[in-house]
Amino acid sequence: MPARTATPVPETDGATAAAPPLLRRDADGVAWLTLNRPAARNALSIGLMEALDASLEAIAGDASVRVVVIAGAGPAFCAGHDLREMRADPTRAAYERVFALCSRLMQRIVRLPKPVIARVHGVASAAGCQLVASADLAVAAETARFATPGVNIGLFCSTPMVALSRAVPRKQAMEMLLTGDMVDAPRAREIGLVNRVVPEAELDAAVAALAGQIAAKSPLTLAIGKEAFYRQAELDLGDAYAYAAEVMTRNMLARDAEEGIDAFLQKRMPVWSGS
Amino acid sequence: MPARTATPVPETDGATAAAPPLLRRDADGVAWLTLNRPAARNALSIGLMEALDASLEAIAGDASVRVVVIAGAGPAFCAGHDLREMRADPTRAAYERVFALCSRLMQRIVRLPKPVIARVHGVASAAGCQLVASADLAVAAETARFATPGVNIGLFCSTPMVALSRAVPRKQAMEMLLTGDMVDAPRAREIGLVNRVVPEAELDAAVAALAGQIAAKSPLTLAIGKEAFYRQAELDLGDAYAYAAEVMTRNMLARDAEEGIDAFLQKRMPVWSGS
Amino acid sequence: MPARTATPVPETDGATAAAPPLLRRDADGVAWLTLNRPAARNALSIGLMEALDASLEAIAGDASVRVVVIAGAGPAFCAGHDLREMRADPTRAAYERVFALCSRLMQRIVRLPKPVIARVHGVASAAGCQLVASADLAVAAETARFATPGVNIGLFCSTPMVALSRAVPRKQAMEMLLTGDMVDAPRAREIGLVNRVVPEAELDAAVAALAGQIAAKSPLTLAIGKEAFYRQAELDLGDAYAYAAEVMTRNMLARDAEEGIDAFLQKRMPVWSGS
Repeated sequence: MPARTATPVPETDGATAAAPPLLRRDADGVAWLTLNRPAARNALSIGLMEALDASLEAIAGDASVRVVVIAGAGPAFCAGHDLREMRADPTRAAYERVFALCSRLMQRIVRLPKPVIARVHGVASAAGCQLVASADLAVAAETARFATPGVNIGLFCSTPMVALSRAVPRKQAMEMLLTGDMVDAPRAREIGLVNRVVPEAELDAAVAALAGQIAAKSPLTLAIGKEAFYRQAELDLGDAYAYAAEVMTRNMLARDAEEGIDAFLQKRMPVWSGS
Repeated sequence: MPARTATPVPETDGATAAAPPLLRRDADGVAWLTLNRPAARNALSIGLMEALDASLEAIAGDASVRVVVIAGAGPAFCAGHDLREMRADPTRAAYERVFALCSRLMQRIVRLPKPVIARVHGVASAAGCQLVASADLAVAAETARFATPGVNIGLFCSTPMVALSRAVPRKQAMEMLLTGDMVDAPRAREIGLVNRVVPEAELDAAVAALAGQIAAKSPLTLAIGKEAFYRQAELDLGDAYAYAAEVMTRNMLARDAEEGIDAFLQKRMPVWSGS
Repeated sequence: MPARTATPVPETDGATAAAPPLLRRDADGVAWLTLNRPAARNALSIGLMEALDASLEAIAGDASVRVVVIAGAGPAFCAGHDLREMRADPTRAAYERVFALCSRLMQRIVRLPKPVIARVHGVASAAGCQLVASADLAVAAETARFATPGVNIGLFCSTPMVALSRAVPRKQAMEMLLTGDMVDAPRAREIGLVNRVVPEAELDAAVAALAGQIAAKSPLTLAIGKEAFYRQAELDLGDAYAYAAEVMTRNMLARDAEEGIDAFLQKRMPVWSGS
């Protein structure tokens, strides 16, 4: 559904966009970004990463967007880096550019002041699994599978593990990284990599429902909370509390908190101003 | 049971204590602290937070107490902050005072040199969920439910998330924080927020059994271990081992370790001196 | 199986090795190290810790070894420190030596440039549980049990908790540490302490299969990845990505990555040079 009527996002690396690598479709405050290289199982070419990075940058300042969904067209969610493209320019400079771009993209997801949901079907592997781990939330089809199989081709999934090891326990991350084995969706939920698992036929509806529920909240509150979440996670307990108490005070002084609390006390629906 | 014959703890903010906001009852080395604002679902008014903070401060130096239980009177464990009280003084200074007090209280639980067990029934939401997450252990009734629903009223649960995100995996914490949805007790155990789930009718017995088991240990050993747990958690591996090895050496030189090990080797019961 | 035909590793503390405390047997690139003090439930005497530490040091530079398995002979995996030996020299200096040695050994497992798998049967308690938690992966028999029971003898498991609290969620670690209770193998898997649980009769085969699968990867890639895993885990997100991107670039420039990727693109098996 997200890919069907979506508007192509022009590639930023100058390629003619007969098949644009990323599609964007907005509905009800939710931006659906669909990786659109189905024949390559949505491998993250430089063009696709740049398009996704640029889309997220634009969305950061777009008040009409409250929640972002990242999905994949075709049989897979995302198969990781585009190995053929990488081996075509086997220089240190080229490799550095790819991994720096990938790392910037993943951190942009974390720093985006709007919640990001990964909609996962088929295979999410290597940097594709990293996309899932980097998203704030993930909803998977029962048939989805996850792997960090770089070890099988001599290239350990070292950047994916930055996201993976912050989402799942250590031994479970290590097992994925050292074996390269596929993890099915129910197991991915058990170890914390995804939030919800639904039948594939219900995946779009489940993602739309979750995105819609969050999009109905105050966008200011979501932005404050998401930023605070990742910042406090890297502080020790005392500093985290000092920081979070200051965030909470600022949040209380915002109009949306006044409105929300007063609406709650008066048993009516709040009307968010986003301020 | 804990609330039935408990001694009221006087409010420290000067209110007349027709209904004291906190009850304390000691039995067998266990202090049961019961949040006692049942009509307000034990909302954490300033008076209740100050009473709980003062009780914990007194307990820290009270050799007769070996384990603390935090429970709630009435239908809920704790519904979070007292929004009506907060909105009655909508100034930055007042908000800062509330969140500083709350953060001090939660850190006092972590720093208390005695184990703290949350006894959870009904709803534990917002700062009430934070109390559960801040306790060393939590036992929940099957019917208990957990939420950080601040996002629904425009006030993201930023201080609760400091405790929550240290207890459960990131995506599961984020789901609670972004949706505000209730998590039931079995799911709370799956994600690590509680240790044990029992039928509601058996909750007091289960908590008493767990508290009693821990209260039978050397109080010195419990104090050494609890402090070391939270300190080492914030160090890198090398520093954590250097610190823990020193703690372990000090512990070995204490009389209770000598006694405990000798009793073990001689197959008799140890007699703790707490030194 | 690993213990049956293994070569004894001489004790390094001068004891006559009628029964060497550690056995080593190499097969198919996997070094099986078997704790061999079965009558003492493989308690970690100074001699056994020194032998294990020395074996791992030797293995670090031994190109014939690609994966290490740590197992225990007799009815238990490992019962922790040798309390009788420790109480025979009850001085600060002696205790410091034991805990420093133990901490060095556990960190050597983490820093070893080869994956380490704990093969757990029977009881793994105190420093024995720490061995399991410190290994990269753990496979347990259905009948295996895990505990940090030091609190029962007045000696909190403070060094074991460094490893335990990095493997399992906080409340679940705290429950083990404060109660000393045994955790069975299925629960150990739920909380993340072990990767796989199999019938005891299939334990050696399951460990051999997992070890063999990993031993078939490029040893250079495994070394790069394992080191990066533990280093990035202690960095904040931005630093972790900067570091991992550099690691990934170096890995791409290695011959094994070129070979692995080209083999993948050409649909043939890779041949690792380890460079």
